Amino acid sequence: MASALLRHNRHLLGLEGMTPDQIEPLLDLAESYALLNRSRKVPRDVLRGRTLINLFFEDSTRTRTSFELAGKRLGADVINMSVAQSSVNKGETLLDTAATLNAMRTDLLVVRHSQSGAPALLARKVEACVVNAGDGMHEHPTQALLDALTIRRHLGTLGGLSVAICGDVAHSRVARSNIHLLTTMGSNVRLVGPPTLVPGALGRLGAEIFHSMEEGLRGVDVVMMLRLQRERMSSGLVPSAREYFRFFGLDRRRLELARPNALVMHPGPMNRGVEIESSVADSTQSVIQEQVEMGVAVRMAVLDRLTRGRHSA
Amino acid sequence: MASALLRHNRHLLGLEGMTPDQIEPLLDLAESYALLNRSRKVPRDVLRGRTLINLFFEDSTRTRTSFELAGKRLGADVINMSVAQSSVNKGETLLDTAATLNAMRTDLLVVRHSQSGAPALLARKVEACVVNAGDGMHEHPTQALLDALTIRRHLGTLGGLSVAICGDVAHSRVARSNIHLLTTMGSNVRLVGPPTLVPGALGRLGAEIFHSMEEGLRGVDVVMMLRLQRERMSSGLVPSAREYFRFFGLDRRRLELARPNALVMHPGPMNRGVEIESSVADSTQSVIQEQVEMGVAVRMAVLDRLTRGRHSA
Amino acid sequence: MASALLRHNRHLLGLEGMTPDQIEPLLDLAESYALLNRSRKVPRDVLRGRTLINLFFEDSTRTRTSFELAGKRLGADVINMSVAQSSVNKGETLLDTAATLNAMRTDLLVVRHSQSGAPALLARKVEACVVNAGDGMHEHPTQALLDALTIRRHLGTLGGLSVAICGDVAHSRVARSNIHLLTTMGSNVRLVGPPTLVPGALGRLGAEIFHSMEEGLRGVDVVMMLRLQRERMSSGLVPSAREYFRFFGLDRRRLELARPNALVMHPGPMNRGVEIESSVADSTQSVIQEQVEMGVAVRMAVLDRLTRGRHSA
Repeated sequence: MASALLRHNRHLLGLEGMTPDQIEPLLDLAESYALLNRSRKVPRDVLRGRTLINLFFEDSTRTRTSFELAGKRLGADVINMSVAQSSVNKGETLLDTAATLNAMRTDLLVVRHSQSGAPALLARKVEACVVNAGDGMHEHPTQALLDALTIRRHLGTLGGLSVAICGDVAHSRVARSNIHLLTTMGSNVRLVGPPTLVPGALGRLGAEIFHSMEEGLRGVDVVMMLRLQRERMSSGLVPSAREYFRFFGLDRRRLELARPNALVMHPGPMNRGVEIESSVADSTQSVIQEQVEMGVAVRMAVLDRLTRGRHSA
Repeated sequence: MASALLRHNRHLLGLEGMTPDQIEPLLDLAESYALLNRSRKVPRDVLRGRTLINLFFEDSTRTRTSFELAGKRLGADVINMSVAQSSVNKGETLLDTAATLNAMRTDLLVVRHSQSGAPALLARKVEACVVNAGDGMHEHPTQALLDALTIRRHLGTLGGLSVAICGDVAHSRVARSNIHLLTTMGSNVRLVGPPTLVPGALGRLGAEIFHSMEEGLRGVDVVMMLRLQRERMSSGLVPSAREYFRFFGLDRRRLELARPNALVMHPGPMNRGVEIESSVADSTQSVIQEQVEMGVAVRMAVLDRLTRGRHSA
Repeated sequence: MASALLRHNRHLLGLEGMTPDQIEPLLDLAESYALLNRSRKVPRDVLRGRTLINLFFEDSTRTRTSFELAGKRLGADVINMSVAQSSVNKGETLLDTAATLNAMRTDLLVVRHSQSGAPALLARKVEACVVNAGDGMHEHPTQALLDALTIRRHLGTLGGLSVAICGDVAHSRVARSNIHLLTTMGSNVRLVGPPTLVPGALGRLGAEIFHSMEEGLRGVDVVMMLRLQRERMSSGLVPSAREYFRFFGLDRRRLELARPNALVMHPGPMNRGVEIESSVADSTQSVIQEQVEMGVAVRMAVLDRLTRGRHSA
């Protein structure tokens, strides 16, 4: 049965509702692309003659570059469209954009938008396969998939693990997608942070809530740190970077509370000295760089999978 | 005999002076590219090894994207060069830019510029084929060609029609190119709008002038709306968006004055509720989305045609 | 023996320390690419499947475009990453960028940065071949190579010549790279300009210092003008554009002091009427446009040479 969010296997809008037998083959395909990337032996004809448009309403050099690379390596014609939020009149205009993209015979549409649900709205109106590259506080599915692939490569499984997601969970689409994926795969998720960033209401997502790093990290297999947006400080949710690091930063001492050789992860870009100590980010337990590598591979797998078997008429 | 503006069949600077036997084969070629776009069967070697530079002195995501797609689908190496107007010292520097583009062995140069005549100036100095992608208040030839192709697909001809171009005609390069093409093909053009935007002097272009939508739309085959630039209001040429819509917006009631099934067109992006009512823009009479689709096809035909048979030495 | 700066033939960070038998074959290869560019017969598979990232921390449309063209013509997947300096926290973050580029399996990294040494720092951390596209006041090696190729094409040699580099030498990475290359090849370099821009201390680079154009240009084979940055005037190093031109601009009268048919060069973009008279820039002695053409060819040669023979695993 197809999930509500990977509708008809045509779009990747979120991970909520996806099943293990949808996730595992996608990770297997991504694993094979990771190997092809290393040997520079990616077949160039997978997306030849296909048009991929990167439609970014929010800036993100890393994610845009990752999708651009994924598309180009598979032979697609890749076009970047950056749209300043200010010049958009919302609603109707987003639909006009959808109509334009249809008319241009777009095959794959990668969308980042500050409003939750914008990619889903577009997906209802475009003939292209839509990939959500991050929407508001909703989901960022390719990030969670690349995190999962990285974990699976090191720990051999995505089931039965204990994973701590630490920091600004309330505002994080990365956290939301990871919670859906990890609980679906049978792992236990802990959310760790101050009550302003990890309110008790998040428990409904099926995760345990901790307001202390010392308690939250005890015995976990994976420590996943989130980036602290600077506006959280100006808006008063966090007193200061220094205070934040003192109570919720990941340092060597706290990492020792996790399982020996627990994985350290971060979606990047990092605020070193704010949410994570430099020496921890660069330690042998860190798989942060591998996350970036798996990001390209996962995006190649998603682009390949969504277009495969789709006739082009 | 080659037209003065498609000089030696090498550049496409405007439609003034082009003859029906130059226009029709270009539309035929575009029609064939429209079909190839739909079936994703565009031959990738038409422009292989050719360099296309998109030189945009004015921002235009839609037009730039349309040319970028056209070039990439035909296999060209496409480079986007956006040049902030402010940093340009006009005249001499434009010629230095031309010299640089020659030295880089540019084959196709797509130029948008706020000054009328800038593409023609460049065309005199570069070895590349120049395509005018809109210059000041002068011309926007590929827009008129795509409009013509869209009309021909629906009405079977470009001759003997009655076409109303409505709105800010005085400042519109889109209108100017359309007037040249449509009158050349034997159609009758009406210009409709307030005297500030449609002064009587425009009559010299061979079109009829109307200052009332009710009169101007009566019995026409095609209603072509223009985008109202917001600066027309700040400069006092138009009282307000609401007033404008009341007198010169295209709504259902006014559209009924035209022929049954008259085509509704707009070069985009639309100001819904200003120059056009949403329900009209989305009605079955609207071919606005098809205009975008034909835009890519027309640009492919132009790029193909200008370079065809040109030796590359 | 490999030079310290073209380390293990893997990076091109600067020309200081390079030997004639490293420089000559690179120019020979560039010469062959110049011919292939003219005939549009560049083999598209030299960099097929390779990823080239243009990482520009400073804006430069010309240099970025030149590298983008060079990469695309050789078949590479080219990605532009423009990074606003302001958003970079220096040091650590540059290393995080390096880690990200490694993870993305970048093969070639072209870097421009306002800080001298930034490309060298990146080169120590990335697996990609790094090409310095201009760093602070340090070096701009591909510019000097393209200047050398242009000179060699006209004068048949790079040895035994007398070359005057005129203008803001103190702040110029272009001048620095040219001094290294020309003195290495056995030519005599004169630096000409006011004491504020050509301080006596530059004599340690092995060049003669002149504070008068009339003396400096006498009998030279090549006059290489530098661009005068406007901030030199606001910072008081130069009184005004008019004054500057009067004493240090290249005009017809001064050019006559050089050898008959001496070459006139400029790295572009020119400030006509400030450092160079328009009629001189456009005269038959000017090879400024050819410099741009050789720029693409030299960059193709560098990209080809650095990756050649490197296994991709």
